Parts: sequence; structure tokens; C-alpha cells
Amino acid sequence: MIRTDGRKVNQLRDVKIETDYLIHPEGSVLITVGQTKVICNATIEDRVPPFLRGQGKGWITAEYSMLPRATESRTQRESSKGKVTGRTMEIQRLIGRALRSVVDLEVIGEKTIWIDCDVIQADGGTRTASITGAFVALTIALGKLYDRKQLSHFPVREYLAATSVGILEDGGVVLDLNYEEDSAAAVDMNIVQTSGGEYVELQGTGEEATFSKKQLLELLDFGDIGIKQLMDVQHAALGELATKIGEGGPETV
Amino acid sequence: MIRTDGRKVNQLRDVKIETDYLIHPEGSVLITVGQTKVICNATIEDRVPPFLRGQGKGWITAEYSMLPRATESRTQRESSKGKVTGRTMEIQRLIGRALRSVVDLEVIGEKTIWIDCDVIQADGGTRTASITGAFVALTIALGKLYDRKQLSHFPVREYLAATSVGILEDGGVVLDLNYEEDSAAAVDMNIVQTSGGEYVELQGTGEEATFSKKQLLELLDFGDIGIKQLMDVQHAALGELATKIGEGGPETV
Amino acid sequence: MIRTDGRKVNQLRDVKIETDYLIHPEGSVLITVGQTKVICNATIEDRVPPFLRGQGKGWITAEYSMLPRATESRTQRESSKGKVTGRTMEIQRLIGRALRSVVDLEVIGEKTIWIDCDVIQADGGTRTASITGAFVALTIALGKLYDRKQLSHFPVREYLAATSVGILEDGGVVLDLNYEEDSAAAVDMNIVQTSGGEYVELQGTGEEATFSKKQLLELLDFGDIGIKQLMDVQHAALGELATKIGEGGPETV
Amino acid sequence: MIRTDGRKVNQLRDVKIETDYLIHPEGSVLITVGQTKVICNATIEDRVPPFLRGQGKGWITAEYSMLPRATESRTQRESSKGKVTGRTMEIQRLIGRALRSVVDLEVIGEKTIWIDCDVIQADGGTRTASITGAFVALTIALGKLYDRKQLSHFPVREYLAATSVGILEDGGVVLDLNYEEDSAAAVDMNIVQTSGGEYVELQGTGEEATFSKKQLLELLDFGDIGIKQLMDVQHAALGELATKIGEGGPETV
Amino acid sequence: MIRTDGRKVNQLRDVKIETDYLIHPEGSVLITVGQTKVICNATIEDRVPPFLRGQGKGWITAEYSMLPRATESRTQRESSKGKVTGRTMEIQRLIGRALRSVVDLEVIGEKTIWIDCDVIQADGGTRTASITGAFVALTIALGKLYDRKQLSHFPVREYLAATSVGILEDGGVVLDLNYEEDSAAAVDMNIVQTSGGEYVELQGTGEEATFSKKQLLELLDFGDIGIKQLMDVQHAALGELATKIGEGGPETV
Amino acid sequence: MIRTDGRKVNQLRDVKIETDYLIHPEGSVLITVGQTKVICNATIEDRVPPFLRGQGKGWITAEYSMLPRATESRTQRESSKGKVTGRTMEIQRLIGRALRSVVDLEVIGEKTIWIDCDVIQADGGTRTASITGAFVALTIALGKLYDRKQLSHFPVREYLAATSVGILEDGGVVLDLNYEEDSAAAVDMNIVQTSGGEYVELQGTGEEATFSKKQLLELLDFGDIGIKQLMDVQHAALGELATKIGEGGPETV
Repeated sequence: MIRTDGRKVNQLRDVKIETDYLIHPEGSVLITVGQTKVICNATIEDRVPPFLRGQGKGWITAEYSMLPRATESRTQRESSKGKVTGRTMEIQRLIGRALRSVVDLEVIGEKTIWIDCDVIQADGGTRTASITGAFVALTIALGKLYDRKQLSHFPVREYLAATSVGILEDGGVVLDLNYEEDSAAAVDMNIVQTSGGEYVELQGTGEEATFSKKQLLELLDFGDIGIKQLMDVQHAALGELATKIGEGGPETV
Repeated sequence: MIRTDGRKVNQLRDVKIETDYLIHPEGSVLITVGQTKVICNATIEDRVPPFLRGQGKGWITAEYSMLPRATESRTQRESSKGKVTGRTMEIQRLIGRALRSVVDLEVIGEKTIWIDCDVIQADGGTRTASITGAFVALTIALGKLYDRKQLSHFPVREYLAATSVGILEDGGVVLDLNYEEDSAAAVDMNIVQTSGGEYVELQGTGEEATFSKKQLLELLDFGDIGIKQLMDVQHAALGELATKIGEGGPETV
Repeated sequence: MIRTDGRKVNQLRDVKIETDYLIHPEGSVLITVGQTKVICNATIEDRVPPFLRGQGKGWITAEYSMLPRATESRTQRESSKGKVTGRTMEIQRLIGRALRSVVDLEVIGEKTIWIDCDVIQADGGTRTASITGAFVALTIALGKLYDRKQLSHFPVREYLAATSVGILEDGGVVLDLNYEEDSAAAVDMNIVQTSGGEYVELQGTGEEATFSKKQLLELLDFGDIGIKQLMDVQHAALGELATKIGEGGPETV
Repeated sequence: MIRTDGRKVNQLRDVKIETDYLIHPEGSVLITVGQTKVICNATIEDRVPPFLRGQGKGWITAEYSMLPRATESRTQRESSKGKVTGRTMEIQRLIGRALRSVVDLEVIGEKTIWIDCDVIQADGGTRTASITGAFVALTIALGKLYDRKQLSHFPVREYLAATSVGILEDGGVVLDLNYEEDSAAAVDMNIVQTSGGEYVELQGTGEEATFSKKQLLELLDFGDIGIKQLMDVQHAALGELATKIGEGGPETV
Repeated sequence: MIRTDGRKVNQLRDVKIETDYLIHPEGSVLITVGQTKVICNATIEDRVPPFLRGQGKGWITAEYSMLPRATESRTQRESSKGKVTGRTMEIQRLIGRALRSVVDLEVIGEKTIWIDCDVIQADGGTRTASITGAFVALTIALGKLYDRKQLSHFPVREYLAATSVGILEDGGVVLDLNYEEDSAAAVDMNIVQTSGGEYVELQGTGEEATFSKKQLLELLDFGDIGIKQLMDVQHAALGELATKIGEGGPETV
Repeated sequence: MIRTDGRKVNQLRDVKIETDYLIHPEGSVLITVGQTKVICNATIEDRVPPFLRGQGKGWITAEYSMLPRATESRTQRESSKGKVTGRTMEIQRLIGRALRSVVDLEVIGEKTIWIDCDVIQADGGTRTASITGAFVALTIALGKLYDRKQLSHFPVREYLAATSVGILEDGGVVLDLNYEEDSAAAVDMNIVQTSGGEYVELQGTGEEATFSKKQLLELLDFGDIGIKQLMDVQHAALGELATKIGEGGPETV
């Protein structure tokens, strides 16, 4: 099977991660996955949300948005509507939860890392691109804290990346769906995985359809292929910082 | 391993489904799973949302809420806060999507079935209890349309039920987590499955933790056990209506 | 005159009050008045609103809501609309004010008692059923504080109950209107009364109609009959706690 | 007993009604009751709310607001808070309901009369002053429709006025409470009455207090005195229009 | 050229400023400019917004609103809409900024002066009338602080007034546009000026039109004429307080 | 005087306009002015707002936003706050008004052109950069309508650009203030001008300061210099389209 954009079924789109994209954020990345482009910025704030105060532990939280014309037809701004949609909330909760799973929050201390993922162009896979790019922005921001001797050891334990896999209407399993494929897919699954091969999130959804255990295993195999390649791109983008990931320290749990 | 409430690791809590719970709704169910109690009501409305108008196809949508004292300490009402939380939005999107996957929406015609899941007492697993109860309320409401000859055939293709599985901090896999277990779990997975054994939704989340493919397969096996028992309770609750599910008709796709 | 449901003009509907209805709240009651069913929960919070801080005095406040399908046709949730209606606000202000009139707030100390009245089925008289049920839930919650020796004496001075009376379109005066009667009534009056026979609230409204002083007195006589019977049901539901009401103590004003 | 402002217990404050106060509204009145000043404007709109469409019947609705410095200390604007308080909603529902009770809505046809009551200075009794002033503004606006031959007969059946009565802490009954008295009163009652002496609304509230049937009758007697005087002022303000009230016509029900 | 209301091109409408208009505010003014009427109230609050705390400096902020029937057809209340329009926000930011430019905020100390401008009747020029009236209300309120010896010297450095100028469709330059002229004007400019002849704000807008540097200078000349006359009215309204303006003191910058 | 970034007082920062920046919008531009970067997208919608329906005339409207980390410290998203700030509203009203002044709206017909200006990096002058970039995005979008023969002639009459000028604390007049200068400036003026040298908007504001007529003229002279250079960059970015501007046609007014 050849896909509409000429890719093989288990082939990722071209991925690029450009670091230091903006001048103000502590970590700033532009990630490009095919035609999907997301600016991922990390901000360090010297306090934690109320439910964590006094515990000596940090927090990572994310916000996600799209420019109105990131999409083919214009989408109304959530600020004009006066509220954030359910889809946006799901995505930003997912990004935050995923990133927190590979970071020692105790090492960060009472700080919040804000992750802002702003999609400037959308062609499918914006949430998985956001996670993949946000991991790099977060690591860069934590690198700055580390260089300033504000951390006892580097708190990122493993790489983290995300991709989508799906089952097309004809039953074919594919990796990294673009918007056209995603709209027509019977099953759509987002996979967030660590460099150790473990899952952090697995969200499979039949869109008025269902999938069997056998299909699930095929989907996961394709996911493994994609995640590995994404981590290679992250590794290259991080440069020297890459060596710090997982080096742990005396306090590592 | 014996659990804090004395259950075996692969044992569901007691499940009861009481039908015709309230007098006004077209379908009304009180589902009790251990100490968790959810009122699930189905309402038939004679129109569809704007994006479906003129397509001759129906829609199923869900809303979910908790009484302020469904929980151990009082939770502020979303109506007082003036907005619905991200958690609520995720859950109501999940319930609607799951139910739509086992119903022929074309057969319903331009009608919306509203599903209201109101948790009056919470002890873990409120979203999966909601789906399991809502399936029964929905089937009863569709049964009324069918009896009034408003449907060419019965549009429910298969049973649908949901449960949770998880990995406790000690690494043990368990079925149907109560609130205490859920709060302490390292991994939490919600499974929505059909009577054909296929998955509709699979949402596995590591809470500052991860899980391997091997653990995933154990989780799914436990899920199979729970889902089967839940469907037995649904079957009993539906009485004669149970025979209509999956009988299809000439228009079945 | 025989009413549509066969009652006499001065006859209440069947009233039941089930205590300890839910497990989490400090006081929890299900009150049933005919087909109207309201869950009334009382929560004790260890602080008071800003305007009372530092005065050593407690507060009682109420929230009221209906399930979307408590009513014959589905009502949109206030959380989805993002705001609370004027009707809801009127009712919750009324419930709080009424309960505060029979409780020594000084004895409670700097605590707030939250009263949540959630109507799960509506057939007229939901606000008066809420007050009658809430009185019992509140008394039970205060009983727990008292048993824990946190109160110098029992702070509930008198019983409190509420009912509705009205004038039908044909001019007939009736007690305890159901929804059908309420919709057609020319005059509708809510009466909140104490066991001493005094009024706490009297809200009479002509719906595009008016009423004379003579009719007012007839309405009040019917109210007396209903209130007395409601207090008998409250008394029975409270069991041993009933003996504490009005026993006062050295600090009683 | 002499009151703090020197009035007798059954004495109204000075009342003035200035008509044609603003140039744009169809009816515009400034009512002054002691230090309380309310601008009441009536606007005619050529349509009715959705629930009345196609019934050939009109509607009267009211909005109420206070300037931030109508009060002794500044009150935050409801537009800045982004929501209307429960107190405001109660008052505007009351004003609309009261005015509708003395007008033949069928005669008006499919029009809405908007009543805007804006309190520019508050010293107690703003809701009753609003009703008394709004009645005049409404009558003037309807007079314009009548002069343009848009009404088959004059639709105002009776005069309508409102005042407050109350029981002070020492047990004394008083008419027309100013802000100082209102703040300290044990019982507060708003009375809306027609020129026929019938009640439209009766809202008596014990503020952490109660009242007996005997006290109720005393309160109502004081109300009769005040209402009569207010209607004399309304009569004078309306000039020639006063003769139209209650003249009815062939279609009168 | 004679204007529709008979004025000469460089002639202001009749201006009146009535002081002590309401009893509660520290400064209260009714300003009338032709048919435009605005109540301007000044409130002194003993704290500053968070961004100024601890700097020993005061703040002046403004809110602006219109009664629904200040305008020819009824405008929906911003409190009902639940949000303030962009136009309102622009105007209230302008009023606050303008007033702050002529007051020594350091002399006021950590206090906020709230300015409320409520338009009760609108016929063009409501924002400039608001500034002109608010200056007087503010000065009166500061006079009270000064009389209570709470200010080291009188903090108002200069008079401040505002007017509008514009270019009509026929190219004619006019002073102080009424609503009819404003609606039809090609260019509209608001000028806020001090008694020293300096500009505080200059906001010129071509409404689907443009203007040249030469026209700009003509507009400014007309503005000078209007501002001077407005300051004469302010001077008269302030009475003895007028002598305090600009008297400065040892700390004057 | 040499400025902190080494520029001369009448020197613009480096300006770049990159066209076809994103793939979906009808017109898409990235404008860079020094460190300020704004994405300007134009969307064509086939309808007009309600107030224009049936007049055969088009409309241009703008929305403006900043990424949270466009600024040195993170700014909360307006979608999270649930409302748009006054500053944002002022800016988007300004952008829309300015663009409408150089376009024949009748030629466009009943279409709305939405302009989205999203600041991805801010260093002062974001609103003027937005106008300058938006003019190019708008012209490109209109060029597409023109190429599809949907316009009788090209509706852009003149170039439009915007810049800021200001007076620093030391009294020096400067062109194109960066963020550091803007924060410290005594007077700040935004100038929107056409290629014919006429003004569309002139917004001069003393920040707790004032300016004289003489200073105003100096500011305008500096503005002329900046605007001219900005139009040269717009001209180059538009390529062949540049020749269409102002060519008009038989219907030109």
C-alpha cells in the first residue's frame, strides 16, 4: 500500500526540531512534522500550585492552542469564545502528565515549568508533535537551571516522545497519520513512550468502530518504530545536553 | 494478595443496575458498583446538532456531573464556578464516543439521544460505571422508539461495558479499582469493550510512572474478566429488550 | 372538590424522609413528597465567609440544583450554560435564610454548614421539600458536632418546615400543589414556618392575578395544617436527636 | 415612638415622581422616595421572547441596577464581575412579574416592554420605589402606543404600587424603612398592591427572626396606608393619562 | 456654514456642571453638554492595585457605563451580556490615563481614586464630557482629603478638560460634535488638554477616510477654543477649591 | 544622541516581510521589526456581520493576540482567563479600522476579510508591526479574489503602514521605539498613514506627562520618515501585486 503522500505504512513524516527559536523563553523549540508546525516554549516560575505548596516538589503543566488559521478553515479563538474547548483541555492535561512521568519533580524543588505549545500550522498529529517538541524545550530549560547549579542532579530520567498510529477504513495499519488520514481513520491511537520502551500514555479510540487485541499489537509495533526515530531527532537537537539525560545522581529513586 | 476491601485481584465489586429509576426520562437507570452510584438518564430530542443537519443521521451525546458531596470532601459545583473542568469534559466526550460506536446512527434518524450521568456517590470508577449504566439507559430509550415503530430495526449492534484496571505501587495488577486504590495506583487504565471482545477505547496512563507491553497484556486480561461480568448484569437488567441487541435488519451495514 | 390526583384540598402528598442516604456527608437525607424527590446533604466546613471572620459566629448557606431530567422535558445544565439562573439563586438564598432563622449561629462557632439540595425528580414544591429535608440533614450534621463535644448546647431552637399553598384558576384554595396544579395556579404561596407557629418566610405571588386579604388568611390556615404534618415526619426521621431540639442551654438568648 | 429621621411609624418618606426625565425612552421617570432615587425607563420593542412567539400576546420584562456609588461604600459593577448577583435577579424578576399582573398583555400584541430601573442613589426601599416608578413609566409608554391607535383599548387595568413594612428590633412595626432601619430590622416585608386593594406580591422575611399571624396583620395595615399615598402621587404624575387606567374596552376579559 | 442645531462651527454646546449631585460619593458631579448628561462620581479607597503596593504612590482608575436607554434605541446591559465591550474598555482606560497626567500620585499616598462615569443621556461626546466632569469630581474628592490634612499639598497640578473636533463629510471642520454629526463625520478627533495648553491625549481617527497635516492643525485650533471655555465652567463649578489647583508645595516636582 | 541599540533617533529597526509564511490562509505574512515578530494571516469568509447584511458591501475585521512567552515574562492566556483584555480590544479595533480606510469595501461585495495578527515575539511596536504586516496579507488575499475574477477592480486604493514615535524622558524625540524605550517614554504616539501622506489614525498619549504642539510636529516629521521606509519594504514583498494598488477602475468613488 502506498499512502496519499507517498509514504510507506510504517514511515514517519519528515521531522525537524529547531532549538532557541524565540529569545525570551528558558527553552524554545519549533518542531515540524510534515506540514505540522508547533512552537513549544518552556517557562520557569518560582512557585508551585496551591496543592503542592510546602512539599519541596516541583510541577510541570502545559497549555496548548492553535492559531485561528493553523487549520484549513478558520477556527474561532478560544479567547473570543471566552472558554477553552474540551479538546484543548484533554490535550493540555495529556502533555503535562506525560512530561511529568520522566522528570524527578523532587529535584526541581518548588518551581513550576510551564509548557506552551502553540500550533502555527496543523496537518494532523499536533498533540504528539507537541509532546515530542515540548520534551526538548523542557530539557533545555532544565539545563539552564542545572548550569546555574540550582539542581542537585539532572532531573530528566529518560527521553519521551509521542506519535500516532491508526487503522484506515480499509483495515490497513499506518504510522503517523496526517490530517487527511486522521479524518478518515476507523481507529486512532496516540502513544507516548520512553526511551526504555515503556508506555506513559496509550489512548486508542474507535471512531464509530472497534479494534481487536491482534490489531492493537500491530499498532504498538508501528509505534515502536516511530518513537525510536523521533528520539534520534531529539537527541541531535539537544546536542551536549543529551548526555545529561538519565545520568541521575545520588538522590535518584 | 488480598485487597483492602477483601477482594481478589481479579474480582469486580458488587454491581447492581436498577431500571426505571426516575419517571420522566425515556431511559433511566441507577447503577451501583461497590459504593459508587450513578444515575444514568437518556433523553430523546427530535433534532441533531448543526454539523449533522440534513444527513438523516442521529447523534448520541453525554453530560457527566457529580453532586458536591458525592465525594469525601465537598467539591464546588461547576455551575457556581461558571465553567466545566477539563476532567468533566474528558469524561463526557468519552461516554458519548463509546456509546456511538455500537449504535447504527443512520437508523435513529435526525434525533439526538442525550445521556446524563450524575454521580450521587463516588468511590472510584465513576466514568466506567457511567458508561456501563448509560448503555442500559440508552438501550431502554431506543426500545421505546422501536416499540413506537419509529425505527426500521433495533439500532444497538452489541453490548458495551467499561471497567478499570491498574497496577498498584507494589506492581500488582488489579481489576476495578476503588477510590483508595485508584489514588495510590502507579498505572490506571480504562477499558471500554463490546460483547464481541473488541476495544472501543483504551486509555492507559502512568501517573508519574510507566508500564511495559507485558504489563499491558496482563491488564487487558483482567479487563476481559470484568467486562464479561458487567455484561451479564446488563443482560439481566434489560429483560426482554436484551434479545433485540444485535438482531439487525435489512439495512444493517 | 376532588383534585386531579384524588387528594382533598387540604391534604398533603405522601411524605417520606430517609436519613443516612449517602455515606460521605455529615448529614444526608432523601426527602420524597409525592413524586418530588430531593437529596439534601449537609457539609461542615471549618471556616466562615470573609464578612463573618473573627466574629466567633457560624454560617449556614445553601445550593440548589436539579438533574437535567428531573423535569418532564430535559433542562440544560447550569454548568453548561456557565451561569446560574435567577430562579436557582432565589431558591438557594431562601433555603439558607430559612435555616439560619432557627439556629443559634453563635453556638456553632466559626464554621459554615453547606446545604446541598439536589432535586433528582421534580413534580412541584421542590423548594419547600428542599427546606423540609434540609432541616433534617442540618440537624443530623449538628448532632455529630454535638456528640463530639464541639458545641456548648444543641443550637437548633425549633423545627422548621415549608410547604406551598395556592389558589387554582377556579378560585379554590389548595395545599401542597403538584406540578400540574402549580402551572395552572392563579396564586402561589410558599410558607416557611417554625414549630412555634411563627413565620420565617411568606412569599405569595399572583401569576398575572391578585389575591385579597380574606384569601390570604385561608391560604395561611391550609399552610398550618401542612406544616404540622411535615414536622411529624421530621420528628420521626430524627429519632433520638429530636429530643435535643429546643433544649437550649445556659447561653441561649 | 419617633423614628431616627423623625417620621411617625406609619408615615411614608417624601415621594416625588418626575415624568419625561430623559428624552430617548418611550416612558421615563425619576422617582424619589426620601433619599432613594431611581430612574425608571420604558422601552417598546417590536417582538416578544421566543417562548411567546406566535401567540399574539405581549410581554413586560425588567432590568435593575445600581450605580456603584448609589451606596455608601462603592459596590463593584456587575459588568466588571461578569455576572449579575442573585439579589439583582430576584428584584428584576419581581418588578416584571408585578407589572404584568395589571396589564392586559393580549391587548399589547407581540411587543415587549422593557423596564429599566437604575438606582442612582440608595437609602432603602429601592425595589419598591422601582415598582412604583416603573408603573408610571410603563403607563406613559403604553399611552404613546394608544395615542398612535396601536391598541384596541388602554391595557392598564389598575394602579400598582409597592412599599416596605417591617418590625424593628424592639418589636415596633414601621412603614417604609430607610436603609438604617432596614439593616437593623428583625422582619422585612415588601408589599405590591393594586388600587383594588388586592395583593400581587407579598414577601415577608425574618432575618434570623420570625413573626406571628397577628404581627402580619399589623404589617399589612401599615402597607395599606402607604400604598394609598403612593397611588395619589402616581395619579398626579400621570395627569390626563390617569383617566385611561381601568377604562377597559370591548375586548376586556 | 450653520450646523443642524444652529451652532457656529467653532461653538461648544451649552455646558453645565452641577456639584454635590449625589450624597454618598466623596466627589459627585452631573455634567451636561447639550443633551449629553453624565454622572461623574469619585470614590476614595484606602489601598492601591497589587502592582503599586509598597511604593507609597496613589492610583486613579475609571469605569464608564451607559444606561440602556441613554441612547435612542435600547442597548443591552454589559452585566447581562456578561462582558464589557471593547468601546467601554477603551473609554475607561482613556479617562483614567488622562486624569493621572495632572495629579501628583506620590502626594496621594497608597490610595485609589475610583472615577465612575455613568452616562444617563447620550448625544455624542460622552467620553469627553466624562473626562471634563470627572476632573471636577476628582478635584472635589481630593479637596476633602486635603481638608482632613491627609495630603502634604494639593496634588492637582493643572486643569484638564476634553472635547471633540471633526471633519464633516463636506470637509468642514467643527467643534464639539453632537451624535448626528459624529455619526456622519469623516474624521473624528478627541483632544484632552491641560490648562497649560499641552496635550495629554490626541486620538484622531478617519472613519473610512483620512486627513492631512493641514487639516490636523485646523482641528487643533478649534480644540483650543473649546477647551478654554470648558475650563471656565470647571473653574466656576469648583468655587474656592479652584484656587488650590497648581499651588503645589515644597515637594512639587 | 545614540540609542541603547545603537540606532540614530530617526532610524527604523531592520524590517523584513516574508510572504506565504503558512500554507492554509489566503494571505500569510511573517513581519519582523527588530526583535518583534508577528504572523499576519488573512482569511476570506463569504458573509458579513449582521449589521451589514443586504448592503452589498464587504467588511474587514481583525483579531490580535500574543503567545504567552512572546514577552520577557510569561503572560497568562486570554483563553484561560476567559476574557480579552482592554488592551487587546483596543489594538484589534485599531487594526480593523485602519485597514478599512484604504479599501473599497463595495468592490469586495458581501465578504468579510478576517485579519489575525499573532505576535510570536514582542519587543515593542507590536500593534504598528501588525498593521504594516496585515496590509500585505490583506493585499495578497484580495489579489487571489481578483485573479479569480471576483472583483470588478482591485480594491486597495493606497499603501498603509504604521509606526510609533515618542519622546524619551530626557525630551528627545525618537522613531520606532523598542520595548525598553517604550517602557520609559514620556510620550508615545502611534501613526497610521497612507502612501498619499494622509493620516488614518493618530494616537498620542502622555504617560503621566504631556506634549506641546511644537513637539507634536516633530513627532509627525519622524513618523513621515519611518512610514516611507516601511512602504518600500511592503512594495518589495508584494512583487507584481504592488502594481495593482491604486489602479482603481470605472467604479472608483
